[in-house]
Amino acid sequence: MVKKIILLGATGSIGVQTTDIIREHPEEFKLVGFSAGRNMELAKKFIKEFHPEIVCVQNEQDANVFRGEFPRTAFVSGSAGLIETAVYEADVLVNAVIGSVGLEPTLEAIKLGRTIAIANKETLVTAGHLVMESTKRYGAAILPVDSEHSALFQSLNGEKIEQATKLILTASGGSFRDSTRDQLKNVTVKEALNHPNWSMGAKITIDSATMVNKGLEVIEANVLFNFDYDDIEVLLHRESIIHSMVEFRDTSVMAQLGTPDMRVPIQYALTYPERLERPNAKRLNLAEIGKLHFQEMDYERFHALQLAFDAGRTGGTMTTVLNAANEQAVAMFLNEEIKFLQIEEMIERAMYAHNPIPSPDLETILHVDSETRKTVQNMLK
Amino acid sequence: MVKKIILLGATGSIGVQTTDIIREHPEEFKLVGFSAGRNMELAKKFIKEFHPEIVCVQNEQDANVFRGEFPRTAFVSGSAGLIETAVYEADVLVNAVIGSVGLEPTLEAIKLGRTIAIANKETLVTAGHLVMESTKRYGAAILPVDSEHSALFQSLNGEKIEQATKLILTASGGSFRDSTRDQLKNVTVKEALNHPNWSMGAKITIDSATMVNKGLEVIEANVLFNFDYDDIEVLLHRESIIHSMVEFRDTSVMAQLGTPDMRVPIQYALTYPERLERPNAKRLNLAEIGKLHFQEMDYERFHALQLAFDAGRTGGTMTTVLNAANEQAVAMFLNEEIKFLQIEEMIERAMYAHNPIPSPDLETILHVDSETRKTVQNMLK
Repeated sequence: MVKKIILLGATGSIGVQTTDIIREHPEEFKLVGFSAGRNMELAKKFIKEFHPEIVCVQNEQDANVFRGEFPRTAFVSGSAGLIETAVYEADVLVNAVIGSVGLEPTLEAIKLGRTIAIANKETLVTAGHLVMESTKRYGAAILPVDSEHSALFQSLNGEKIEQATKLILTASGGSFRDSTRDQLKNVTVKEALNHPNWSMGAKITIDSATMVNKGLEVIEANVLFNFDYDDIEVLLHRESIIHSMVEFRDTSVMAQLGTPDMRVPIQYALTYPERLERPNAKRLNLAEIGKLHFQEMDYERFHALQLAFDAGRTGGTMTTVLNAANEQAVAMFLNEEIKFLQIEEMIERAMYAHNPIPSPDLETILHVDSETRKTVQNMLK
Repeated sequence: MVKKIILLGATGSIGVQTTDIIREHPEEFKLVGFSAGRNMELAKKFIKEFHPEIVCVQNEQDANVFRGEFPRTAFVSGSAGLIETAVYEADVLVNAVIGSVGLEPTLEAIKLGRTIAIANKETLVTAGHLVMESTKRYGAAILPVDSEHSALFQSLNGEKIEQATKLILTASGGSFRDSTRDQLKNVTVKEALNHPNWSMGAKITIDSATMVNKGLEVIEANVLFNFDYDDIEVLLHRESIIHSMVEFRDTSVMAQLGTPDMRVPIQYALTYPERLERPNAKRLNLAEIGKLHFQEMDYERFHALQLAFDAGRTGGTMTTVLNAANEQAVAMFLNEEIKFLQIEEMIERAMYAHNPIPSPDLETILHVDSETRKTVQNMLK
């Protein structure tokens, strides 16, 4: 049976890699709908190639142009269109949009009991409790796409989660893992965008350099697997070959390994519990790699990771603040309005200024999110 | 429910470690019977501690002495006694005897549909096809105890074996991994018994030094998981931290890791599919270890491993010859009758002289086994 796929964020890095997988397995998957960001050229290419039934673009003008050109596809736009696309009839919804804009579409798809492959970690970070509660209530399924969470998920395969004692997330250290804090003061946007192992989008590459990304992953792991922060460990592992590990109470540690290629975890989320061929993919050759390195995480050097643990332990709206402050600060850094180290400084100031609200509802979360962005913008004034 | 355990080979290294686990979990396990080797002191200690219902010793005199002292335990002896013990009513039979003497008791327990935790790899090497056919026919279960096969088994947890593409067995390289073949010429028994990572019995420690042990494990993996020899790889991994790995067709590799402690895989075989606490066990700390090394296997340096692949690919009685020749040669080496490199030389000569019989029955296997031992003994004359 061909699986119908809806892909939110098709023109982003994860989105494009998802289309690679659909293209490689036409007998397995059909792209019935997607949403696109600003890259209209690529959106057009995907429409011609996949003949989707529904496509969401950012604004109504673009939708109108497309309507004239592709009469057999329904075009929608904006936030309402994104939700309409998310709930369109399908077997798997891949949520690969960037930022907290992915939250509402996810919640609506959950209400329909859908299977959601989630690459949009901000959704879980800002509203993890709402997402997981709804998932349970409506019998939906959340499958991780992030390589680390996919590795944890795979390591838990066939196991009882209550017999797991520790989640061990590996971290490559990002673009500046060998730099001191002093050396970080004047790094450029271009330098920050140069990730040593993974090919990813701009926002997540900056998040890797600040280690905010690992912090968001820690919170995501807490949400997805319902693990205490004390039982989540981050381990510096330069090569990104062991993608993450789970320790069990008998001291056994299960791990998932592979060459760094996001298409592997994306595909796993689409095929779970099966595994399909990855044609032409590079297989892991440990003898060729020779050595794997592991190092304790330095929370002073990677201060943003400490902030994420702090936000997670505080809970309530504090993780929303962490995420929103980071999104705003990264945008400002990419725009060359602030320096690299100001990203974590702004996150810390936003967290410090915030009075957390426990168990927030969606309205509260969205309010805190937008207030935090304003707060961070105003820090420049 | 307390699991009743029968333990063949209680006074050997795996046997003693199995009693550690039973001792640590009195609410989980009861040792209802065991067989002992030559160490009567230890056998006596176990009888006093565990109050077993049946005990097998090597000869009838020892049985008689024990009968006087422990009137509430049944004592049996010799090969017939070993079979009687193996089929004694229990939930799990742990077969931890050394050498091909473990074969018949295993086959008899299989006929009763028992769950057998098998540490006696010679059984699978000499008569793998008989064991696996019977296991299927009688609905028995074979659970691996060897750390490598336990790791493969755990890595296959929750997976479909037909989606696995490669079994990757790790090898520490044994006592002489840093020696050239030239340096091996005059190594002593004492040097050979000094394994860098694992605490094991004498025979298996010599087998690790010659790499015959890894060869037996390759054949065991072929038998247990029904994998072609072309899809079984051996990887030199000095630290014995990754205990083995399975590659899947999506290029994902699942691995089981831990500090080298045989009690972990032994306990897993006793508790599968559950995992129990391992009180006081050392947890894996990769940051402390720092580096893991991997290297391609050098089949010229480790010629015995090549012989094992050759024997496995030839099949039929050739694996019986490999195992029997090795058992005989190792005994002669431990007895200081031959030099270290003569072990593999004798195995090769025995294999070369043998005309393999395909799909042998038990009688043929036992005949080839004893003939091979004689052939090897006669090589000294």
